[in-house]
Amino acid sequence: MTDSLPSIKGRVCAVPYRHEKKIVLGHGSGGKMSGDLIAKIFLPPFDNPALRAGNDAGIVQPDIHTQLAISTDSHVVFPLFFPGGDIGKLAVCGTVNDVACMGAKPLYITVGFILEEGLDLDILDKIVASMQTEAGKAGVQIVAGDTKVVERGKADGLYINTAGIGIIPFGLEIGGQFAQPGDLVILSGTMGDHGIAVLEARGELGFQTKIKSDVTSLNHMIASMIDNCHNIHVLRDPTRGGVATTLNEIAKQSNVGITLFEKNLPVRPAVQAACEMLGFDPLYIANEGKIITIVGPNDADKALRVMHNSPHGKDAIIIGEVQEAPQKRVLMKTVLGSTRVVDVLMGEMLPRIC
Amino acid sequence: MTDSLPSIKGRVCAVPYRHEKKIVLGHGSGGKMSGDLIAKIFLPPFDNPALRAGNDAGIVQPDIHTQLAISTDSHVVFPLFFPGGDIGKLAVCGTVNDVACMGAKPLYITVGFILEEGLDLDILDKIVASMQTEAGKAGVQIVAGDTKVVERGKADGLYINTAGIGIIPFGLEIGGQFAQPGDLVILSGTMGDHGIAVLEARGELGFQTKIKSDVTSLNHMIASMIDNCHNIHVLRDPTRGGVATTLNEIAKQSNVGITLFEKNLPVRPAVQAACEMLGFDPLYIANEGKIITIVGPNDADKALRVMHNSPHGKDAIIIGEVQEAPQKRVLMKTVLGSTRVVDVLMGEMLPRIC
Repeated sequence: MTDSLPSIKGRVCAVPYRHEKKIVLGHGSGGKMSGDLIAKIFLPPFDNPALRAGNDAGIVQPDIHTQLAISTDSHVVFPLFFPGGDIGKLAVCGTVNDVACMGAKPLYITVGFILEEGLDLDILDKIVASMQTEAGKAGVQIVAGDTKVVERGKADGLYINTAGIGIIPFGLEIGGQFAQPGDLVILSGTMGDHGIAVLEARGELGFQTKIKSDVTSLNHMIASMIDNCHNIHVLRDPTRGGVATTLNEIAKQSNVGITLFEKNLPVRPAVQAACEMLGFDPLYIANEGKIITIVGPNDADKALRVMHNSPHGKDAIIIGEVQEAPQKRVLMKTVLGSTRVVDVLMGEMLPRIC
Repeated sequence: MTDSLPSIKGRVCAVPYRHEKKIVLGHGSGGKMSGDLIAKIFLPPFDNPALRAGNDAGIVQPDIHTQLAISTDSHVVFPLFFPGGDIGKLAVCGTVNDVACMGAKPLYITVGFILEEGLDLDILDKIVASMQTEAGKAGVQIVAGDTKVVERGKADGLYINTAGIGIIPFGLEIGGQFAQPGDLVILSGTMGDHGIAVLEARGELGFQTKIKSDVTSLNHMIASMIDNCHNIHVLRDPTRGGVATTLNEIAKQSNVGITLFEKNLPVRPAVQAACEMLGFDPLYIANEGKIITIVGPNDADKALRVMHNSPHGKDAIIIGEVQEAPQKRVLMKTVLGSTRVVDVLMGEMLPRIC
């Protein structure tokens, strides 16, 4: 558990760059700069309802019988292997989870590899095997693929893009825009495990934490939650930008306020220790196997029960509640009894984390 | 038109590398080495019917009402802008065409950007605008996106992955496995324009050709062909590896022989001149706005008429025929009256062409 998580810790670089007309690492953070890039560069020309909704996957109806959730993610994590996973597992899980967060059943994945000249085929073999293992667990098929090769130095071994397609029953409305005052906010487990595991794999910690990445596919647990609870309003995996940024996005989409209970925020002691040493805040660190669920208050116990029965949700806990005001803001009731604002991630804390 | 196109010209590097256990540029060629990589590394673990079919897009049925074609492509073309197009236009067209080649109506595209730190936002703006222009022309929506940023030197400005989803009416069977003896092979226009335009943009020609890339979305022309002709068996866009490699893939998939008529092979004089200077063969150079159509003989005239009515098919011409034997081989009747084997692309002729 954490004692004190001032969100300012997440603010590392950023502001000076924002007026230059160049891409900086912060544009890939998943935080404020990523949001600005989307709002200013991508959304105006590409604008359409599926994209504008701002969820982890776009929802479309190719015909009157069928509703699909479609998502994509590129993966540039460095290094390629880290405690608990690798870039291949990450690519499959990330896309499966994005599709599942719309209430969809993920069915198909595409995989685009950008390989660096000189990459050892044994490494590629391992990553491909890891992708298939995870696809098998998640119950998705890899139905299309592509391979490009770039010269030495033009990629770090390989980059992987995955796109995911799932099917959503009509009538199921789950998305960042559906949080309502009175709802409770559940987090499925500890924060920051993925980010710290990758940092450890980079040798940047200077000590061993034994922390493993939480990277996993959550679609089966999510399906069970949806089967058992009829008032799930929002599902979102707090990846880049962490829990703090994800909740800010939801507060904006739903035009509500969200208040976190600091005393309930789950953090492993080793992650907390690493964060304190590095000046990081677990609220802003990427997770790859966690889910934020926002439910009507009567459904919270049922949702918790389902999560506690899954290996991926045994530490699930209510971390906050949704309120009418202050709209579009996330607050935190600290363990000291004060209330403070929890903003989105500014700048870039941990580049190349996913 | 071309005089003599010995396929050996396409064989540039390759064989010495194939026994090393490292990725080389040839693995991204779209030719023999790409095929080997798919057959040995990707297909065994990922194996499923959609992938095994070996077409430009996988065909799946998410429910009993709906049949989808799903494809993906990463784009690493260098430079980002070239006569006739840019990486953004290329990314949209490539994916639209792959989906359309299954007889599907392309509806949705996902876009994953991998941006290099330091990329000028004006360049990104132009590329994004170009993508939207082409998506508008093709009638597809960009429904999901993702942005990652990598450090300076770790990408050439940007790489783009696109995945495409389209809908196919039940009963329509178009794919590389459906070529039949007696069918005719139509090419929608001149070969090699894209590859030579990119080479010119790289300053590698040493003279100006005024050749523009043929990059364009062919889905509307293809839809009109399908509406008018009921015996279209194969549609395939001859991108990396060129017409020669694409026809070899089809010959293998359908277990037939294909004979090309050298005298009919359409090549612009400037492309032919550039190829002769560089020792390249237009049969192996990437096209990004051309389609190979294999039709029952009674439908060839109709297909040609539809193509001639489109700006993208006005030079369409019958370039060959399908025969029972030699199975899985492509032959060419040369202008000198002899017959020779046309093999797949060996090694890599033009890296980073798409």
